[in-house]
Amino acid sequence: MENSHGSPRRVKNVSLEELRDRLAEFARVRGWEQYHSPRNLLLALVGEVGELSEIFQWKGEVARGLPNWSPTDKEHLEEELSDVLLCLVQLADVCGLDLGQAALTKILKNAQKYPVNPKISDTTNFPNSYP
Amino acid sequence: MENSHGSPRRVKNVSLEELRDRLAEFARVRGWEQYHSPRNLLLALVGEVGELSEIFQWKGEVARGLPNWSPTDKEHLEEELSDVLLCLVQLADVCGLDLGQAALTKILKNAQKYPVNPKISDTTNFPNSYP
Amino acid sequence: MENSHGSPRRVKNVSLEELRDRLAEFARVRGWEQYHSPRNLLLALVGEVGELSEIFQWKGEVARGLPNWSPTDKEHLEEELSDVLLCLVQLADVCGLDLGQAALTKILKNAQKYPVNPKISDTTNFPNSYP
Amino acid sequence: MENSHGSPRRVKNVSLEELRDRLAEFARVRGWEQYHSPRNLLLALVGEVGELSEIFQWKGEVARGLPNWSPTDKEHLEEELSDVLLCLVQLADVCGLDLGQAALTKILKNAQKYPVNPKISDTTNFPNSYP
Repeated sequence: MENSHGSPRRVKNVSLEELRDRLAEFARVRGWEQYHSPRNLLLALVGEVGELSEIFQWKGEVARGLPNWSPTDKEHLEEELSDVLLCLVQLADVCGLDLGQAALTKILKNAQKYPVNPKISDTTNFPNSYP
Repeated sequence: MENSHGSPRRVKNVSLEELRDRLAEFARVRGWEQYHSPRNLLLALVGEVGELSEIFQWKGEVARGLPNWSPTDKEHLEEELSDVLLCLVQLADVCGLDLGQAALTKILKNAQKYPVNPKISDTTNFPNSYP
Repeated sequence: MENSHGSPRRVKNVSLEELRDRLAEFARVRGWEQYHSPRNLLLALVGEVGELSEIFQWKGEVARGLPNWSPTDKEHLEEELSDVLLCLVQLADVCGLDLGQAALTKILKNAQKYPVNPKISDTTNFPNSYP
Repeated sequence: MENSHGSPRRVKNVSLEELRDRLAEFARVRGWEQYHSPRNLLLALVGEVGELSEIFQWKGEVARGLPNWSPTDKEHLEEELSDVLLCLVQLADVCGLDLGQAALTKILKNAQKYPVNPKISDTTNFPNSYP
């Protein structure tokens, strides 16, 4: 993952389509497709969100960038974030939905719902629900 | 989203990096970064997973491909799947982690943990936890 | 737990107030109150719901009464259901709220919201959201 | 709920058995038992945990006792806490499990797992997972 100068080298971006295809192949060659019904994958997703929450549960407020976290803790967090993502990608796939296009569409919809306020310090339009 | 022949046209894949950058800009121009602490975004993620679950909660088992779902129901599901994804991408971003690379790394790790069984009908190595 | 006739004997009902008091004492004597902020307990609750979901995640639909579950699996489920309850009771307690009275109030509110239909086979008033 | 002196009057504690019985009757008279499979109720529980999380999601850290919350916000929180409890009680019921006894058993088990430390200021034995 490092180039000849010792600095990180990013070969390419990671697309949702690539993850989807890799995960579909992963399940296929192991004969696991039979377990991947939508509600099974949804409950697996909930399980992974639970594991993600456990990382944060006793920490009190956590600053952006995780300034005092050890590399081991960060790696653990990366794994749990990934597990949530992988479940989500598989759930969308077995539902026959295009998660990447859906996400782009939702960002556009959110942009229309929450127009940019000329006074950006005015946060009165911050929504109660996400985003 | 349709080309000149009226059929769906996929311009390009959707990368996690593109979503991350769009969401960061979305929050920045609205002055919302102040709300996007890791635990705030984690709870927003949990809220979105709850909305996703509500879609499936009274349906009993659901078949792959959602054969009897209306276009409206599918669109609703796409929005809730997207909301989960957008929260997750933002959470990784404010933690300073690279979700795409982390996901690829996790798939490789899973492949080592669960080697392909030569008899794919033998599912005795199916894990209790995800994947 | 069985009386002299071999049938189950329930000494007494278990109240939410008793659980609350036992848990408060449990935390107090261990010096753990400092960790029991509302959001910490909420994330712990999410973690426990995740563990509960893992029990059900690969099972497909499960019949009422869990007819084919082993005693060990049922005991595991009892533990995870309990963990969710104990987190919830503590969360309400540190928020200064009376969970038992709130629950009774909510049942009454639900009864007003969903009046009994004279034709109980008519389920058109079944809500999309809980209950 | 108020006695003749205008002050709150607590008639009695609220038991899990009472909630269970009330909820079973509630579902029975509405013909809703058909929807109350274990996994349906589990997903409903996840949905309610999501609504509970939404209350806390943009608040940053919240102090015990919710010192600056309005009565309306507290009442909303009571309702969401109750919805989680009611789903949980029903889930245990349709699984044929005794939630109250299970919770008492779990508290005893936790007490054995985490013995009281003579130096209560020493929190080195605080667990990573709940409790």
